[in-house]
Amino acid sequence: MKDIRPLSPKEIRALIRQGKWDKPTAGLAMGYAQANLVILPEKYAFDFLLFCQRNPKPCPLLEVLEPGRFRTDFLSHDADIRTDIPRYNIYRNGVLEGTIKEIKSIWKKDFVSFLLGCSFSFEEALVRAKIPVRHIEENKNVPMFISNIPCKTAGVFHGPMVVTMRPIPSEQVSRAVQITSRYASVHGAPVHIGDPAKIGIRSLRKPDFGDPVTIKKDEISVFWACGVTPQAVVMRAKPDFCVTHTPGHMFISDLLNEELACL
Amino acid sequence: MKDIRPLSPKEIRALIRQGKWDKPTAGLAMGYAQANLVILPEKYAFDFLLFCQRNPKPCPLLEVLEPGRFRTDFLSHDADIRTDIPRYNIYRNGVLEGTIKEIKSIWKKDFVSFLLGCSFSFEEALVRAKIPVRHIEENKNVPMFISNIPCKTAGVFHGPMVVTMRPIPSEQVSRAVQITSRYASVHGAPVHIGDPAKIGIRSLRKPDFGDPVTIKKDEISVFWACGVTPQAVVMRAKPDFCVTHTPGHMFISDLLNEELACL
Repeated sequence: MKDIRPLSPKEIRALIRQGKWDKPTAGLAMGYAQANLVILPEKYAFDFLLFCQRNPKPCPLLEVLEPGRFRTDFLSHDADIRTDIPRYNIYRNGVLEGTIKEIKSIWKKDFVSFLLGCSFSFEEALVRAKIPVRHIEENKNVPMFISNIPCKTAGVFHGPMVVTMRPIPSEQVSRAVQITSRYASVHGAPVHIGDPAKIGIRSLRKPDFGDPVTIKKDEISVFWACGVTPQAVVMRAKPDFCVTHTPGHMFISDLLNEELACL
Repeated sequence: MKDIRPLSPKEIRALIRQGKWDKPTAGLAMGYAQANLVILPEKYAFDFLLFCQRNPKPCPLLEVLEPGRFRTDFLSHDADIRTDIPRYNIYRNGVLEGTIKEIKSIWKKDFVSFLLGCSFSFEEALVRAKIPVRHIEENKNVPMFISNIPCKTAGVFHGPMVVTMRPIPSEQVSRAVQITSRYASVHGAPVHIGDPAKIGIRSLRKPDFGDPVTIKKDEISVFWACGVTPQAVVMRAKPDFCVTHTPGHMFISDLLNEELACL
């Protein structure tokens, strides 16, 4: 297939819908916000919505659809979340059962879809401001760590916050805080700056997910809340059924990252 | 009763709990955030939480309590929302049935409490920045208007946004936007600046609620989303039962306004 990176979100979603793109979405439709997906049966929906309301940094809600609805209103006007994501993970009782390319065939009327912001949006802003984003430079996955920062519990949902780490040159840390603060709906400002031990991280060389990255002399470890948190929390709660996007295989919205900026 | 204004939130809540203060709370415990209250039976809770998620400017959620819970975790550690508000309005099928001083006697296990931010918080920041707040200067209620800006619908909840208007000297409008932008959890930045007709307001001299205020030459009308919106939306949906605070008689939290600032 030819390079699809320059295509519009609408064009890329059409390819995905036709089953012609089932790979990760990083680097596609640059400038547009991508979103994480969590689908839960209605009986869990209030608790999970409340969990997101109480933990907006790891769980920045971009759009929630009413029970049974599969068309987005805010993130796009012509998307179908049953078909427009490259790959879906199916969980039963918290256990991964399989990965599929569409969920139209298993859709139920009580499914509630939650679309959550993703750090791709603020990373683009960091790069634009000439702040190095190491895992992009090194062509790796961002290093993620299970911190000891507790999320606020809501009903059956609880657990620690997962964080991402990006090493930032000390003279640019302040600017990195300012820039990411603008993007409250995609994780926002850092949750911690400096000593990893303070938030329960033993070794930056051994991330719980993703890859370790080089930390240069005079760089400070800066930690942001991570969108893996809600997935980890859902798995821990073991709902009888749950669908998520397959990590890295996101929903590409029609919303510009810039439209998400709050200041 | 002696002047209670200098008392702490905890002390004022104790007086309210004992039935010794049943008047409005404006001007009390300056510096601390006050909150609007909406209580709905559990069957409406998901829709209303979703409505607030979709309409964060008029419905800035500060805290939501699980069904049956009456103690706050975030806004205070020792408050009981059944007794710590000076007056409560009781609605049946959208009709005001009465105003009472405590709701312990009518509390039910399926009540879900929503506490929402209030513009007192950002008005204090405006005053501190020497930006005139006309209705405070003139000792009036803020003028409120039913605009033609539609809220995003969620389940049974829908309706237009109610806005407040504050006339701001033209050279200070930019600063007023900056300051209130910091307070996203208490209505945040203006929703409209200038021509009232653009948002369906016919006459600034005839507010739908509150009092008209003087608009001086070279002042621009600046409109913010108003906390009356969720109350109006709930009344329109006519839930079989609903409790709110009586307008002006708010919940006084232990949270400093400054703790709500996002930048």
